[in-house]
Amino acid sequence: MELQQAIVERRSIRRFTDYYVTDDEITMILEAARMAPSWANTQPWEFIVVRDKTVIEKITDTYSPNNPARKCSMSCTALIVVCAKKNLSGCKEGKQVTCLPNWYMFDVGMAVQNLCLKAHELGLGTVVVGFLDHEKCNEILGVPSDTTVVVTIPVGKPEVSGKQGPPRKELAEFVYLNSYGNTFIR
Amino acid sequence: MELQQAIVERRSIRRFTDYYVTDDEITMILEAARMAPSWANTQPWEFIVVRDKTVIEKITDTYSPNNPARKCSMSCTALIVVCAKKNLSGCKEGKQVTCLPNWYMFDVGMAVQNLCLKAHELGLGTVVVGFLDHEKCNEILGVPSDTTVVVTIPVGKPEVSGKQGPPRKELAEFVYLNSYGNTFIR
Repeated sequence: MELQQAIVERRSIRRFTDYYVTDDEITMILEAARMAPSWANTQPWEFIVVRDKTVIEKITDTYSPNNPARKCSMSCTALIVVCAKKNLSGCKEGKQVTCLPNWYMFDVGMAVQNLCLKAHELGLGTVVVGFLDHEKCNEILGVPSDTTVVVTIPVGKPEVSGKQGPPRKELAEFVYLNSYGNTFIR
Repeated sequence: MELQQAIVERRSIRRFTDYYVTDDEITMILEAARMAPSWANTQPWEFIVVRDKTVIEKITDTYSPNNPARKCSMSCTALIVVCAKKNLSGCKEGKQVTCLPNWYMFDVGMAVQNLCLKAHELGLGTVVVGFLDHEKCNEILGVPSDTTVVVTIPVGKPEVSGKQGPPRKELAEFVYLNSYGNTFIR
């Protein structure tokens, strides 16, 4: 698939068919995530592929009430839990050196975008779930204290397609020239 | 360009020719960034395209000493400064609702990955610079207090190409099944 098509067509999918996402598909998706850049190539990401329905249920139970991704997380055949080692990105010898904390969030974001684009190319839908109880998820999955769950991503074959994603702001609303607030696009 | 090619071939570029990156190219790159998903579609990103050499110099002066992106930032014809509104992503009515702060870092990471992939397709190189003085950059660019610079991205035609990027960990090193530490790939 063309890059442009993947970027424009990808949207968040919250309804899946009962198609079983294969290990090969998961591997291709994670190979894409792996190629993302990161702070000093620290690659702070880790992934837990959850197939076990009991574990999926426990994780979904930590979602915010009325999280619109609850149903598709429960029904998916593979829930990818994206974790990050906390003291690599934005750090030197384990100590934060950036003004902005949690730099791993940025790196994991880049890897996750690759993941979602690649899944879309394979005909698979994804949705990124961040509104959950990270502490509880860490406990459920046995994540060590120097690491944390960041998001979960249910993966599946989209039940419906062709639906438009939510609208985006126009460039003129958020692109400036040389200083903040100075119009770039005329 | 095929998505797979873009994902695999893209690498961080720190040496540019004197090619002038056009406004059309910048627009295409930012259109790609714009299509990224974000927390509740809040699209917390903003971009300042810096063409003014004096401003570029001031921003580069805030980089960490010996930052390997200093030279290419000084010589580039367009320095894209990526900002984020701080109280949208991961927030409800301006109040943080996630366990992890600074959720905008994650969203901006996703948008930046689209940006870097699209630039690569256009034959342009990028490198993401995060090790800088964010407070000073905010001041230089007149960024309001509810917003912050996150990264700068010098853009240019790569002077050399075909060089391999730094190696990535193997999937077996960071992918688990059902719980942390449990091998996924055999």
